[in-house]
Amino acid sequence: MPRFRLTIEYDGGPYSGWQRQANHPSVQGALEAAAAALNGGVPVDVTGAGRTDAGVHALGQVAHLDLAKPFPAGKLADAMNAHLRPHPIAVLSAEAAADDFHARFDATTRSYLYRIVNRRAHLALDAGKAWRVPVRLDHEAMHAAAQALVGRHDFTTFRDAQCQADSPVKSLDRIDVSRIGADIEIRTSARSFLHRQVRSIVGSLVEVGRGRERPRWIGEILAAADRTQCGPVAPPDGLYLVSVGYPPGR
Amino acid sequence: MPRFRLTIEYDGGPYSGWQRQANHPSVQGALEAAAAALNGGVPVDVTGAGRTDAGVHALGQVAHLDLAKPFPAGKLADAMNAHLRPHPIAVLSAEAAADDFHARFDATTRSYLYRIVNRRAHLALDAGKAWRVPVRLDHEAMHAAAQALVGRHDFTTFRDAQCQADSPVKSLDRIDVSRIGADIEIRTSARSFLHRQVRSIVGSLVEVGRGRERPRWIGEILAAADRTQCGPVAPPDGLYLVSVGYPPGR
Repeated sequence: MPRFRLTIEYDGGPYSGWQRQANHPSVQGALEAAAAALNGGVPVDVTGAGRTDAGVHALGQVAHLDLAKPFPAGKLADAMNAHLRPHPIAVLSAEAAADDFHARFDATTRSYLYRIVNRRAHLALDAGKAWRVPVRLDHEAMHAAAQALVGRHDFTTFRDAQCQADSPVKSLDRIDVSRIGADIEIRTSARSFLHRQVRSIVGSLVEVGRGRERPRWIGEILAAADRTQCGPVAPPDGLYLVSVGYPPGR
Repeated sequence: MPRFRLTIEYDGGPYSGWQRQANHPSVQGALEAAAAALNGGVPVDVTGAGRTDAGVHALGQVAHLDLAKPFPAGKLADAMNAHLRPHPIAVLSAEAAADDFHARFDATTRSYLYRIVNRRAHLALDAGKAWRVPVRLDHEAMHAAAQALVGRHDFTTFRDAQCQADSPVKSLDRIDVSRIGADIEIRTSARSFLHRQVRSIVGSLVEVGRGRERPRWIGEILAAADRTQCGPVAPPDGLYLVSVGYPPGR
């Protein structure tokens, strides 16, 4: 069974999330239907690196799948896309992978972008694609506050109650907050994230940005390891899985 | 009658264009309905700087309107937006204007952006917001070719048959083609443009970018002043009216 690795862009808006669910449209379900159509109708499992939530987008999700018969890797993206349309899901590239390549377990870095549009007017062009925050945010205070999160910590405060990870201890490699005009971008990378960790962090940083909390509060609620101290969780609209990194040779 | 100046963002996708039309949704019509609601139900004319075509977007269209009674300028954008929602049209700012300010006739610069995504996969996140060109484009050849258009010329070749301008002679101030990854941006400014001039230019530049024509062809078809020599007109999806400039004090 030849294995392939896909890089995928999607608009998470219309889906209940990455993960296949009975009676709800999912990104995985749409990809599996397209792959089955190429596989003589035989069902195919498509395994993603990150199980994005409902409404969360991807610029570069990575997934693997096995087909029953050889298929030219150079034609797989076009073939998948022909079956995916008009879904807002696009296979950007496809390549042959080692038989034991695993999109999720082999991943060593996941990078996310969170987009805030800091203005009063509702979003005309970016509706569903960013979080509009009407109150003026101090992005420099947000950036300074966020640095307390870098490194290895117990992230219980920023972990959803539904999280299935074995441990709340994770290493955050970077988190940067920058602004161009009304657009604030929060970029963060780690080997892996807890469920709703990025949105919990962003929601808390916005409390700092709007002046309700001082920058050192982020380090204090992290140290408390207490979910009830987290700020309001940011909406999914602004979150993008940007890329997934693998060790050399994977 | 107090006059106001509005700066407006919109997604042109759902509209037949800026201009009010019977039985077709238009951006102007939606703005005029919102303004009338603030004006005690009395109809209001909203006059835009640029009459964008069906499907063309704006990041910073400018328009003026008169209300029957004084209205606090600082509250006008919020009030308009409350009536505009859920239209993908947002008033970014509103300010008091001179009684003789005219959004269209006073404008001295109009700046447009055209977005191309140069990749094979269909657009998941940017559907309707950019032109996908699957064939590899040489953006440097496009930029070089475009420079023949800068300055004062007879733009008959790049003018739609429906154009109502008195003269095909216009001055193009700048046109720049740049690329970041798969995203190609074409930015151009002029005092004013002919009908479909930007899309006619972009479509012709893509003929150069894909290698069907040499860069000097753009100057040749410009000199021919012959509409039949224009390349295929680019679709509206990628076009954005970015900003409108006025003389100091206007």
